Amino acid sequence: MLDCWNDTPTRAAIEGFVASVTSEGPDFIDPTERIATFDNDGTLWSEKPIPIQLDFTLRRMAEMAEADPGLRSRQPWKAAYEGDLRWMGEAMVKHYRGDDADLGLLLEAVPKTIADFTVDDYHREVTAFFEEANHPTLNRPYRTCGFEPMVGLLRYLEQNGFTNYIASGGDRDFMRPVAGHIYGIPPERIIGSSQTIEYQETESGTDVLYKSEMEFFDDGPAKPPRIWSRIGRRPILAGGNSNGDIPMLRFANAPGRAALRLLVLHDDAEREFDYTAGAEDALARAKDRGWTVISIRDDWSSVFADAGDA
Amino acid sequence: MLDCWNDTPTRAAIEGFVASVTSEGPDFIDPTERIATFDNDGTLWSEKPIPIQLDFTLRRMAEMAEADPGLRSRQPWKAAYEGDLRWMGEAMVKHYRGDDADLGLLLEAVPKTIADFTVDDYHREVTAFFEEANHPTLNRPYRTCGFEPMVGLLRYLEQNGFTNYIASGGDRDFMRPVAGHIYGIPPERIIGSSQTIEYQETESGTDVLYKSEMEFFDDGPAKPPRIWSRIGRRPILAGGNSNGDIPMLRFANAPGRAALRLLVLHDDAEREFDYTAGAEDALARAKDRGWTVISIRDDWSSVFADAGDA
Repeated sequence: MLDCWNDTPTRAAIEGFVASVTSEGPDFIDPTERIATFDNDGTLWSEKPIPIQLDFTLRRMAEMAEADPGLRSRQPWKAAYEGDLRWMGEAMVKHYRGDDADLGLLLEAVPKTIADFTVDDYHREVTAFFEEANHPTLNRPYRTCGFEPMVGLLRYLEQNGFTNYIASGGDRDFMRPVAGHIYGIPPERIIGSSQTIEYQETESGTDVLYKSEMEFFDDGPAKPPRIWSRIGRRPILAGGNSNGDIPMLRFANAPGRAALRLLVLHDDAEREFDYTAGAEDALARAKDRGWTVISIRDDWSSVFADAGDA
Repeated sequence: MLDCWNDTPTRAAIEGFVASVTSEGPDFIDPTERIATFDNDGTLWSEKPIPIQLDFTLRRMAEMAEADPGLRSRQPWKAAYEGDLRWMGEAMVKHYRGDDADLGLLLEAVPKTIADFTVDDYHREVTAFFEEANHPTLNRPYRTCGFEPMVGLLRYLEQNGFTNYIASGGDRDFMRPVAGHIYGIPPERIIGSSQTIEYQETESGTDVLYKSEMEFFDDGPAKPPRIWSRIGRRPILAGGNSNGDIPMLRFANAPGRAALRLLVLHDDAEREFDYTAGAEDALARAKDRGWTVISIRDDWSSVFADAGDA
């Protein structure tokens, strides 16, 4: 059962695909090969007005600029210190359109916000953030901003022998502390961007710490190699929502094997957001290639779980 | 049941640890946290006279030197072309003693042997190698050179709710095609060294190809960050056999939690090999810290499965 999905052609496409790969016949795929990979920001949880991780990072940057006035005139600390979310949101849109100038400034600054944290420190900070931080316009805690129908889809896939992974441009270790609670996906199945991490021996034991540089930026053409590196198999089902997901969606195509590509279309200003910026190429390709477009407005009977359920 | 283990203190230590973390009490550990990581070369399969992967690579290098005479005077192609295994074996021993000069030549050359292969090409070549290649002195196919008692240990751990991973200095994608058959460990749980891989779109679809450079060399202090990157948890049980495994063994120590460290001692010239070169520091540390040393001679009732069983 696909919880919270309306009875639409989209739902029928998902159920038809799952039936075909799980039933005896020409499209049958062994359970070990039933790998599903999902983008996170805008696919499994809301990414507007800014990605959730960026809110966490902005708070860290504002703290840094509070402590060091020299940072207050430099982007992205300036935007963080002044609460200028617009600059941040546009950096992502520009990226998806091929202009990485502002994203470059961000990517250079972001690693500095957790440099020298141990992986345990960061885990603790992220956990604390999700315990209290609220979405700025949806009026609900961030930890309840996952899409209920997508969580229903994850459970449905599991019931049909699939193994679900997240393959996101977001930071791997930012998702890990909450992905179990929100999506039921454990840390070993979170693929994402990461800073370089380093082993250190201490008096009392051992630590792994973040360095002040990126090791992976897991978006666009980096997604298939990161998926291969982690899983060693191609997905047979992939879900995304933006141009950065096109290579992952294309990669879900081992020769001679069925595949399902899902693209979430944000067309519901009333219940979530309405935008296609940064998804134009993906939507055009979906139309050309018969990828399945999920309309939030038409296909989902609810978008979020009740905030009270968290 | 630990198949093929004699009734020794080593076996009692393993059974005692597993009982303590799986029984209600102060040492109980949730199944999701029962992560075991094992080195491969010399820990799960034989690594003498040279690591199995090196035999595969030498065959590729000999082919390259056959085609290009200029390579025949350059190491490591010279050694490969002349069948000089000694040079290769010593490069590894020197590495474990801290001298990386020869290993540097090797590491520079190794990626060239599969550069521009797709991941599917390499998978096919490795699979073909294991179908036919024999160990040079043990008189058995390489695919039967896994240690039967270690396979028994993997099964025993699984039966007790553990999840087993390989974390090896060996090449990740060299192990993946055979680790399922030999150890029952699937590709997504193989952590290892790797060349950089790159996404490519083709007429007919998509590929992931190897570049001519290393992305990871997963040994020594690189093992804990690679384990964190892949699993997002510390192991509670780690097994190795050489100095390069010390950081991984040390990393199996979340504060306040029980841990078991296993070190395989090769002391059985009759049934396998007898050597401590490259393991001196690990053995000294095992003695100091009470890590559990596995004596092949004393602890194992058999070393390999019958070759006929393969």
